[in-house]
Amino acid sequence: VTESGDVVPPTQVCLPDERARELVGEVSGVRVVVWDGSLPVSPEVAATEFLVGRYPGGPLSAEQLSHLPHLRVIQLMSAGADSWLPVVPPGVVLCSGRGVHGLSTAELAVGLVLSIVRELPRYLLQQAEELWQPGPRESLSDKRVLVVGAGDIGGHVGEVFTALGAFVTLMGRSARAGVIGLDQLGDVLPDQDVVVLAVPLTAQTTGLVDQEFLALLKDGAILVNVGRGATVVTAALVAELATGRLRAGLDVTDPEPLPPGHPLWHSPGLVLTPHMGGGTRGWDVRGYRLVRTQLERLTSGQPLLNVVSA
Amino acid sequence: VTESGDVVPPTQVCLPDERARELVGEVSGVRVVVWDGSLPVSPEVAATEFLVGRYPGGPLSAEQLSHLPHLRVIQLMSAGADSWLPVVPPGVVLCSGRGVHGLSTAELAVGLVLSIVRELPRYLLQQAEELWQPGPRESLSDKRVLVVGAGDIGGHVGEVFTALGAFVTLMGRSARAGVIGLDQLGDVLPDQDVVVLAVPLTAQTTGLVDQEFLALLKDGAILVNVGRGATVVTAALVAELATGRLRAGLDVTDPEPLPPGHPLWHSPGLVLTPHMGGGTRGWDVRGYRLVRTQLERLTSGQPLLNVVSA
Repeated sequence: VTESGDVVPPTQVCLPDERARELVGEVSGVRVVVWDGSLPVSPEVAATEFLVGRYPGGPLSAEQLSHLPHLRVIQLMSAGADSWLPVVPPGVVLCSGRGVHGLSTAELAVGLVLSIVRELPRYLLQQAEELWQPGPRESLSDKRVLVVGAGDIGGHVGEVFTALGAFVTLMGRSARAGVIGLDQLGDVLPDQDVVVLAVPLTAQTTGLVDQEFLALLKDGAILVNVGRGATVVTAALVAELATGRLRAGLDVTDPEPLPPGHPLWHSPGLVLTPHMGGGTRGWDVRGYRLVRTQLERLTSGQPLLNVVSA
Repeated sequence: VTESGDVVPPTQVCLPDERARELVGEVSGVRVVVWDGSLPVSPEVAATEFLVGRYPGGPLSAEQLSHLPHLRVIQLMSAGADSWLPVVPPGVVLCSGRGVHGLSTAELAVGLVLSIVRELPRYLLQQAEELWQPGPRESLSDKRVLVVGAGDIGGHVGEVFTALGAFVTLMGRSARAGVIGLDQLGDVLPDQDVVVLAVPLTAQTTGLVDQEFLALLKDGAILVNVGRGATVVTAALVAELATGRLRAGLDVTDPEPLPPGHPLWHSPGLVLTPHMGGGTRGWDVRGYRLVRTQLERLTSGQPLLNVVSA
C-alpha cells in the first residue's frame, strides 16, 4: 500500500530453479515463480517482469521470451552478456552478473600465467619420472604484463601481478586514470612478456587477437585468455604456437566446447582448461545475493546495477 | 685516508665467481678476490674479511673456513641459513640473502596452491585426452589460508591471497601486530583450508609438521611447503596423503634431492617441484646488489642488514 493508499501489485520475478528461490529468499513487494523454460507457460510465468538467466547455460530463445510480454529486466549470472544480446526484446534492460565470478576468474588467469611461467607441466612430467632437475627458471618479477580488459576480472589480475613484482599495464576500451586505451595496443604489445585477455565479446573485441597481434608479441611471450574464445582467431594462434615462438593458456576457445580432434588440443606450449574460470563453489550465494540486491533496488526505485543495455 | 690522516687498508672481500665480481662492481674501500674454495689459499684469499657464499650450493667446510683467519662477515645469497650455521666460526657475523628470492618463492607458493585448488594436473590430463569437462570446481575466495612464516616470503604470499579474496592468517615465531604466534598453531589449524609453510629451518621448525599437525587439518586441506624440507616429517605426510584425505605441494623435501624410488614421488594429491622457488633469472642482479649495499654499510660503519647470528 502506497502513501496515497493505492495497492501496489508485487513485482513478478522468474527464477531458473528451486536453489535460486532458496538463496534469494523473501523480498518485500516481490512474488517469485520458478520456470525451467518449458512451454506452454503458466499465467504466473507469463506475468514475469524480472527474469534471471540460468547459469551455466545459454540464453532462452526468442520464442520462449515471446511468452513473457511484461518483461522489463533480464538479470544474468554470468559476466559475459554476448550470447543474450541478440535475443533481448526491445525495451528490456539487460544486467550482467559482473562481480559474481570476477575473483575466481582472475584467480584462474593468475594460475594459468604462473603454471606457464614456472613450467608446472614440465615439472609434473619430471615428478612422474622421479626426476629431480630444477634447471634454469623464470619468475614474473620485473616482467611486463598487459591486462586487456580493465573491469572486475582485469582489476584483480593487475593487483595480484603488481604484488608479485611485475610491471602491469591495464588497458580498457578508452583511456582513463590508470588505464590506457585499446588504441595503444600496437605501441605496447612488443614490450610485453605476458598478455592477459579479460574482455567481453563485442564487435571491437571479436577477432582482436589475430595474426598481426600475435606477430607483434616478442619471442617466448605468454598469452592467456579467460574472457571469450572468439576474441582470439583460433587458426592464427594454432599456427603461431606450432612454431614454438609463443606460449598460451586458454580457458575459453572458439569453437567451444573444443571438439575432439581439433588441432588446438595438442598445440605445443598451451595449457587448456574447459571454461572453468567462474562457477566455482559459492558462486550461487554471491549470484543470488546480487539478484536480491537488484530486486530491492527495483522495488525501491533505485537504479539497477550492472546494466549492459537498455 | 681518514680525517686524522691515517691510511685505512681496504676491506678484503671474497666472491665465489667472476659473474659476482662483475655484478658487485667497484666499491670504494674494498678489494675483491674470487675464490672457488680450492686449497691451498692465496695470501689475498687468506686475508678475507667479508665472504659471499656460493649460490646455489652448500656451505664451505670448517676446514676451508679455517684458512680465513681474518673473516668477520659471511653473506649468503639464500634466504635460509640453516646449512651454514654449524660451520660459522665464533665471532663471525652471518647475514642471509633475505629479499633476493622472496618474491619468486612466494610466487611459486601461489602457483602451487592455485594449481592444486584449480586442479590443473587433472585438466592437463583431460587436455591430453581431448576431454572438455569442467566439472564442479573450487576457488580460494572465502577460504582460510594460514601462512606459517611472516617474513619476506610469507608477507608476499599473504598479500596475494588477500587480493584473491581469501581470509589470511600470518603466523610468526611470536605474536606481533598482524601476526599470531606459533603457540596458537593447535587452535587455528582445524579451521584452515590451506597452510603455506615459509619458515627457516630451526630447532623449533624441524619436524613441526608431524602426524599430530596433519591430523588437525580438515579433510581436503592443502599443505604447501616452500621453506625447508625437514619442517615436514616426510613419513607422516606420505601416510596421510596415501589416505587421500589431504592434498599437498612441495618445493622442498627431506631427503633432498628426493632419491628415485622414494614413495613421495607418487603420493596421491601431491604436486612436487625440485626446489626451484628461488634462483629465478635475475636473482644474481638482486643478490649482488645486496652484497654491494652491505659493503657500503660495512665500510661506512652502518649496521649490516639481514643479520642471522653474530
